Amino acid sequence: MGFKIREGKKTDMFSVLKLIKELAHFEKEPDAVIVSKEDLERDGFGSAPLFKTFVAEMDNDIVGMALFYPRYSTWKGPTIHLEDLIVTKSKRGLNIGSALYAKVIEYGFNQGVKRIEWVVLDWNKPAIDFYKKTGAVVLEDWNTAQMNEDAIKKYIETL
Amino acid sequence: MGFKIREGKKTDMFSVLKLIKELAHFEKEPDAVIVSKEDLERDGFGSAPLFKTFVAEMDNDIVGMALFYPRYSTWKGPTIHLEDLIVTKSKRGLNIGSALYAKVIEYGFNQGVKRIEWVVLDWNKPAIDFYKKTGAVVLEDWNTAQMNEDAIKKYIETL
Repeated sequence: MGFKIREGKKTDMFSVLKLIKELAHFEKEPDAVIVSKEDLERDGFGSAPLFKTFVAEMDNDIVGMALFYPRYSTWKGPTIHLEDLIVTKSKRGLNIGSALYAKVIEYGFNQGVKRIEWVVLDWNKPAIDFYKKTGAVVLEDWNTAQMNEDAIKKYIETL
Repeated sequence: MGFKIREGKKTDMFSVLKLIKELAHFEKEPDAVIVSKEDLERDGFGSAPLFKTFVAEMDNDIVGMALFYPRYSTWKGPTIHLEDLIVTKSKRGLNIGSALYAKVIEYGFNQGVKRIEWVVLDWNKPAIDFYKKTGAVVLEDWNTAQMNEDAIKKYIETL
């Protein structure tokens, strides 16, 4: 049951998208994924990549992935945001998730970033416990505000 | 009492840092700001800038700023994160904040991003009300997890 963590390549984006869709399906929002394989290939591997990935490979199959990108703290400086960490359902419990997590933290350490950040659902106690065990803090008083494409368009019309 | 919103330049970073420090002081964390003017100049105006700013200018003085950068949603694609929006205390109530906010949303609209995102303290009702009025949603069940530089180092040592 060996697996290998390596940097994601353009040719992995089909498998990466499959993992993204598996998670969206699990979260009962299969139609919320409008990103295509071509989008991921263009956005992650152009002249100014918008993200990087690590993938977990097992028996020539991509069974997990972590997707992240730089952010910036006006107090601390360069940071990393971990957007997604997904392990396919049939391969959970093999420490693939924690290996991907460690790889991202290690990457951030090597880059000298001031912070690594991600979001977690407030009821996901197993995840929160894991994060805290590794030294992360969970900020319960900050909420995420979002304006989606439709709302942006509507707001622009009021200006 | 006229003001002008324009894109921030390298030479504005002294004033931008002053606003960042004013806010940190107000939040009773003046020592939390370790970023320097030189850091902002390098990180925002190098070959791969980590952020962009809009500034509000009034009587040849920078009285407000919005700092933002690209992020990526694995469901939607390219997004923008609004990291900071600050108006100096003596110039509040003149709609400078909402003008900076509108400028960022307009920028995102012109870039064709799928979402604009930021965080808000859950007790900051005036801010939340304003955001909702403009079409944003506030996700109360997502919390931010962070590992800071010290925690990263300690965690790496356990691997």
